[in-house]
Amino acid sequence: MSAAPARAERAGLAPAAARALFRDGLVTPTSGFSDGHAQANLIVVPRDWAFDVLLFAQRNPKPCPVLGVLDAGEVEGPLLPGGDVRTDVPLYTVYEHGEAAGTRTDLLDVWRDDLVTFALGCSFTFEAALQEAGIPVAHLEQGVNVPMYRTSVECTPAGRLSGPLVVSMRPVPASRVADAVRITSRYPAVHGAPVHVGAPEELGIRDLAAPDFGDPVGIPAGHVPVFWACGVTPQAAVLASGVPFALGHAPGHMLVTDAPNWQYQVP
Amino acid sequence: MSAAPARAERAGLAPAAARALFRDGLVTPTSGFSDGHAQANLIVVPRDWAFDVLLFAQRNPKPCPVLGVLDAGEVEGPLLPGGDVRTDVPLYTVYEHGEAAGTRTDLLDVWRDDLVTFALGCSFTFEAALQEAGIPVAHLEQGVNVPMYRTSVECTPAGRLSGPLVVSMRPVPASRVADAVRITSRYPAVHGAPVHVGAPEELGIRDLAAPDFGDPVGIPAGHVPVFWACGVTPQAAVLASGVPFALGHAPGHMLVTDAPNWQYQVP
Repeated sequence: MSAAPARAERAGLAPAAARALFRDGLVTPTSGFSDGHAQANLIVVPRDWAFDVLLFAQRNPKPCPVLGVLDAGEVEGPLLPGGDVRTDVPLYTVYEHGEAAGTRTDLLDVWRDDLVTFALGCSFTFEAALQEAGIPVAHLEQGVNVPMYRTSVECTPAGRLSGPLVVSMRPVPASRVADAVRITSRYPAVHGAPVHVGAPEELGIRDLAAPDFGDPVGIPAGHVPVFWACGVTPQAAVLASGVPFALGHAPGHMLVTDAPNWQYQVP
Repeated sequence: MSAAPARAERAGLAPAAARALFRDGLVTPTSGFSDGHAQANLIVVPRDWAFDVLLFAQRNPKPCPVLGVLDAGEVEGPLLPGGDVRTDVPLYTVYEHGEAAGTRTDLLDVWRDDLVTFALGCSFTFEAALQEAGIPVAHLEQGVNVPMYRTSVECTPAGRLSGPLVVSMRPVPASRVADAVRITSRYPAVHGAPVHVGAPEELGIRDLAAPDFGDPVGIPAGHVPVFWACGVTPQAAVLASGVPFALGHAPGHMLVTDAPNWQYQVP
């Protein structure tokens, strides 16, 4: 296993160099790697399920903004030139018959030629824009993974797929909520504007301190919990829908792509 | 056949009322109907081709921004509640084995239960925003259909589908080109920012006065031809790819949807 580079070094790594570290066995959340480049959620399903997943994404664009799709069996593409989607993510999840079947550091043993890989936008992209605007990002300041919650909001079903909306949460100073809405709206390809501001109970979230994925973060006084759609949503749908076989990234352990963040910005 | 309503009356028609006129036989371009509601391009293919079309759209989001997908055999949905996609568009096109096989005023005789309908965003939405900003829209002022051109730019292929990018053209005063870019960028779901400004020869367009679809418009002095991706692109791909059977709207004869324009705007 590779040694983890220091924080400043992570930010400056070219995406291909970051992927090489993960390919060589480094297991770590990818937040902070390769500044200015989009990171992606993964969902990988057999070809027979690919239309359902792509339609689910089309009908639920806030949690499932598709950045790229590899053809069945393909392991490399424009988002990861020269890479290999089976090895270049630090940690993967495996799903069988709608149940989590553990994590893996590579997919070489479980890969099949009929597997179609979807890469979805990740909120790490707009976090950089929030920070540039002086809006604090609590989980980065606290050095933990972003908290994520399954909600009581059902996604729009598509074919055989249905499931709950998963959201990420960031506390935002009340005076900056409007700015956070405006700034993140400019990045529809990486979840865009929040889906919910305040009132977590309306999302069916009982305890902000007990996220379903990631780590809890404290909410400072005068801050409001703001919820964005999360790219773990299709994995929740795979679980809820009993998909026979699927693969994903482990939450927070993303695919570092060559795509520059700026190309996903609208005015 | 219904009588065509006057211009002021068209603008104020509820979308369902406009669709009812077309269902009753009115054949006319839909520009100017039901102000404030999105109009949509259609592409309808057998279920066996649906993943290819949806993947083509994902890989070519500027010409093919998907607003909605009906399941195989469905003729009604959230974009046209109480409507029927087989009858509610003024004029349709039929494609067989990669060749245009004529136009029809309804699809009742050719409908099949395995047909999947895709509705794609249409630039009519951002034209309203351009006009509000005082940017003239030449084809509206001249009372003709927008000019559209097949280009020499190839779309990104997907599965069995490939074909040229089709663009629409609007002349814009040189002093307002930046505004037109900024304003239309706010509507990524209806083609978004221009794909090309000036230099039509770089797109392989030899004569702006001879569009492939729609009508020619004059380019006033001091105006620059500005090109946006066009929702006729998937129909061009159906032609170029030899799809055995497909249906679409006739260019300019759109599906008038219930979706308000504002919901497709980003800051």
